[in-house]
Amino acid sequence: MYDYKDRLLQLHQNVRDKGIDYYYIPLSDYHNSEIPNERFNLIEYLTGFSGSNATLIVTPSQVYMWTDGRYFIQAEMELEGTDVILMKQGLKGVLSVEEFLDANMGPEDVLAFDGRIVNVDTYKRYNDRLLRPNMNRRICDADIVSRDSLDEVGYTDVWLLADEYNGETLTSKINRIREGNNFKKVDGVIISNLCDIAWTLNLRGSDISHVMVFYSYLIITNRDVILYANKSHLKNVEEYLEKNGVEVRDYNDIYSDLSDSDFYRKFGIYKMLIDMKSLNTSVYTLLNEKVDVLRFDSIPSSLKCVKNDVEINNTIKAHVRDGVAVTKFMYYLSNRFSGESSPNETEISLEKKLHEFRALQEGFIDESFDTISAWAEHGAIVHYEATSKTDAAITKDNFLLVDSGGHYLEGTTDITRTFLIGKASPKMIKDYTLVLKSNINLAKARFLSGTTGKSLDMLARDVLWQEGIDFLHGTGHGVGHILSVHEGPNNISFRNRKDIAIRPGMITTDEPGIYLEREYGIRLENELLCVEDVTNSYGTFYRFDCLTLAPFERECIDIEMLTDDELSYLNDYHRMVYEKISPYLTEEECKWLGKVTAIIE
Amino acid sequence: MYDYKDRLLQLHQNVRDKGIDYYYIPLSDYHNSEIPNERFNLIEYLTGFSGSNATLIVTPSQVYMWTDGRYFIQAEMELEGTDVILMKQGLKGVLSVEEFLDANMGPEDVLAFDGRIVNVDTYKRYNDRLLRPNMNRRICDADIVSRDSLDEVGYTDVWLLADEYNGETLTSKINRIREGNNFKKVDGVIISNLCDIAWTLNLRGSDISHVMVFYSYLIITNRDVILYANKSHLKNVEEYLEKNGVEVRDYNDIYSDLSDSDFYRKFGIYKMLIDMKSLNTSVYTLLNEKVDVLRFDSIPSSLKCVKNDVEINNTIKAHVRDGVAVTKFMYYLSNRFSGESSPNETEISLEKKLHEFRALQEGFIDESFDTISAWAEHGAIVHYEATSKTDAAITKDNFLLVDSGGHYLEGTTDITRTFLIGKASPKMIKDYTLVLKSNINLAKARFLSGTTGKSLDMLARDVLWQEGIDFLHGTGHGVGHILSVHEGPNNISFRNRKDIAIRPGMITTDEPGIYLEREYGIRLENELLCVEDVTNSYGTFYRFDCLTLAPFERECIDIEMLTDDELSYLNDYHRMVYEKISPYLTEEECKWLGKVTAIIE
Repeated sequence: MYDYKDRLLQLHQNVRDKGIDYYYIPLSDYHNSEIPNERFNLIEYLTGFSGSNATLIVTPSQVYMWTDGRYFIQAEMELEGTDVILMKQGLKGVLSVEEFLDANMGPEDVLAFDGRIVNVDTYKRYNDRLLRPNMNRRICDADIVSRDSLDEVGYTDVWLLADEYNGETLTSKINRIREGNNFKKVDGVIISNLCDIAWTLNLRGSDISHVMVFYSYLIITNRDVILYANKSHLKNVEEYLEKNGVEVRDYNDIYSDLSDSDFYRKFGIYKMLIDMKSLNTSVYTLLNEKVDVLRFDSIPSSLKCVKNDVEINNTIKAHVRDGVAVTKFMYYLSNRFSGESSPNETEISLEKKLHEFRALQEGFIDESFDTISAWAEHGAIVHYEATSKTDAAITKDNFLLVDSGGHYLEGTTDITRTFLIGKASPKMIKDYTLVLKSNINLAKARFLSGTTGKSLDMLARDVLWQEGIDFLHGTGHGVGHILSVHEGPNNISFRNRKDIAIRPGMITTDEPGIYLEREYGIRLENELLCVEDVTNSYGTFYRFDCLTLAPFERECIDIEMLTDDELSYLNDYHRMVYEKISPYLTEEECKWLGKVTAIIE
Repeated sequence: MYDYKDRLLQLHQNVRDKGIDYYYIPLSDYHNSEIPNERFNLIEYLTGFSGSNATLIVTPSQVYMWTDGRYFIQAEMELEGTDVILMKQGLKGVLSVEEFLDANMGPEDVLAFDGRIVNVDTYKRYNDRLLRPNMNRRICDADIVSRDSLDEVGYTDVWLLADEYNGETLTSKINRIREGNNFKKVDGVIISNLCDIAWTLNLRGSDISHVMVFYSYLIITNRDVILYANKSHLKNVEEYLEKNGVEVRDYNDIYSDLSDSDFYRKFGIYKMLIDMKSLNTSVYTLLNEKVDVLRFDSIPSSLKCVKNDVEINNTIKAHVRDGVAVTKFMYYLSNRFSGESSPNETEISLEKKLHEFRALQEGFIDESFDTISAWAEHGAIVHYEATSKTDAAITKDNFLLVDSGGHYLEGTTDITRTFLIGKASPKMIKDYTLVLKSNINLAKARFLSGTTGKSLDMLARDVLWQEGIDFLHGTGHGVGHILSVHEGPNNISFRNRKDIAIRPGMITTDEPGIYLEREYGIRLENELLCVEDVTNSYGTFYRFDCLTLAPFERECIDIEMLTDDELSYLNDYHRMVYEKISPYLTEEECKWLGKVTAIIE
């Protein structure tokens, strides 16, 4: 606690010394990654708050911290004893950071931030909102927190994803980027999204927990390819990069290079494409001083979301492996909890057990995200993560919700099953069946080319909305290939503003849920691969192939509530699970799987 | 034919005289109305082509005409003997107008058009596409067709929609426009969409066939309201306008006023809002020379799509009247075609008969659009309009598709029913039931606030897509209140780019269909009023009230294909139709209605 106070006092001093009125600190790395490496968590460093969503505003005398409903209680506990003023995002009457700044900044005030952790999008938005024509407000780039540990970036050895796993060479990918629509209007592109860079180069790292990337920038011109990364971690891929004509420079050289007019002349860059979402303001400002800048939606993002045949075929294999692990886990549960008295298991012990099953699978690299193992009422907390403090003992007659996934050499998985421990009440059966209907209705969609995730979402929501029930998260997200388990731009959500057509080769999750506070949570998640269906005079129809392989909870399904189509989908699905998973099970497990996937009539 | 040739020869001459390389003529009026008054049809005047979609490009020696698939055959016939080159829109390899211009215009070429019939949106798009940095192409405003008949605009007497019908005074509407978000950034707005002006002033005209508007502009500043319209047709509303502080100027004065700096000074206008879609380039150019211009989505459009209680309650009455007319027509059909031999009826004779039933209703003003009365294979032509040449005799064992509507003093209606004449084949029954399921699935939706028409469309399409069937039009459009039967921005369509949330007070059609070339068309259209449903911890749900009242074709419904929910919706709907319509029928009609709406079990 003493540390935090000291650090904040020093920060107030720095704010005053620099003539800053409002200092803005988001929780972000230099690439606006969804989850930054933990070293970048300046907010925990300054205040002790350890939640995954927070924004700080520091004035000469005060500190405000914004976080969302998931973290209100935790924030109050962790911030106790500090003078941090907690701003509860989403509560009525609580201003957003942007509104707060606009309402409080005087006409001569200065807003500052470390431009390396603020993306161009946010910077532009704050510019538009705060810099009003009749005022002299200013926005400045200033790093006044100064953590030495962030000077050298790039933490893990980078490795090559071999040809049999990537399906497309670096050269081919770079050529396709060069053929991208917006590329023709410029002399080069700077790629700053870490997943985009890893995908383009067929390289992987572990610089961010569960995300297979390495801190870097990539500049592609018509002739040259320049990678900025921590050279000390590139030893295994040096030769590969050289052979493929990729020039390697040190991660921090990006700043000196982009300040140097000779650099642009040497590489013939007069106009450059940037990605507003991942490029940071410091790099952008340097670029913008020297050359014309064209903002764009990332070209590699729009390419990598459509998986190639090698990626698809490998992903199918990865799902068999993952399905074997989850099915074995389900069998383990059914055995472990078959008796009258509860065995000694908790959320964390079961999370570990599931990890063991996954770790035994060939090609397993890592979990693709922190496993959610949530017993009973914890299941209703959408982003629950069991800690030693919350770790609940598994008793009976309730649901265990497990959302997990793995990175394998062949691909990445994301699956949620909700397991019944003990007996189900009629209400539990009704809710489980509703979620299953919702999942199936989306999974069995047939849709014309051009249909977006916003339209498809209705198929999943309708079942629940008819009952006056909703779930407060998207129905589906894209899944990266041994990169980040969350990957855009494809998604299935009725509220999303960035709505794109779902096309063959895209892999998107299907994960509706019902969450009852203080009771339980149910979520059923499969991954869906979009494939071509019939083409006729109306156009080309698409449908989904389901990649995820693990049984649903037979005892929780009320057949009366299913339509004929839904029931026949369920039976087909269970037959497929048995066929693909049983070869990898023991005889005993096989027998059990046969029973839980038997045809329901 | 001779006339046309002369006119085109003269036009080629004018093009050469003015140094024009490409002269662009769209089919539009000065306000980009969906359907212009027929006087504006320069394309028919020049070429003889009478279709409702066409664009002409005239060069010094050639004429190109673009039209879509509905008109290919008609265009070939009507253009015979002319030298017009037909460009078949949508066919593979046929360039769009924009692509054609871009591909053919030389670097020094001049594109010209009458700026009064080209909206700002198109003008901006052509500017962006055609005026490339490395070329000297130019775009000019030039009227070289010069039809005197278009100098004086405004053709019918304007009348006041009384308080008991409009539900909100002119003053209140103008105040709400002034409170519009974008209004705060400017000193005034120029409203150019004719429906917006009529709605704002509570005035109606008949300047466009079936659209209750009058040619005009409306300027609203913080203090003043100025209406530009043909004064000779304002006699009935002069006093009303004066009393409400609306200054009236002649329609054509808009050009001299906007050229005059004193005008802007007098009214304190330094920055003005415009509507890109309806403002024409000539007016825009004048404005843009004198003051700052802010482009916007029309404020009145976003207000008028949410109907007030008076409008809603009146519209409900209008639908009872319209339902009585359509139900009587259905009874007429059932009687007329009850015998073995076909009576002497055609598409047009039945269209007239339906008109008679409507004209007998209290408050009837006009059809809200040209009735589509389409027998058998004509029903598969989505925009079919029977002419003396195509008028088909009604025989038997097929469908008669009738899409029609009325303007009443209380409101506007739009309904499609597909009537069975004779006996239905199993295929006809299956298709009819599919369309009915599609209609009902959308109609019985319950959805969270924020849900858009893009999401809702999935409910209607899913039923058909599962069968590999689609219909090539939107599922629903907004309906104006005694204005245009097509009114944005609300719509239900999975392909629409302009996608807005459906909110209580909006009225949108629900009109799925199946169209089988050379066989028949089936479309079933009801109007849906969005209303509030439950509010709970998930948010506020909305649902639809069905406004349209006329039976479905009982003999064409395969009950086995309906879910329990669909069947119960159908029975409830038919009960409502009987309750609301029967009081206005003869005893005999009543008995018949009782039978065709009886509960199906």
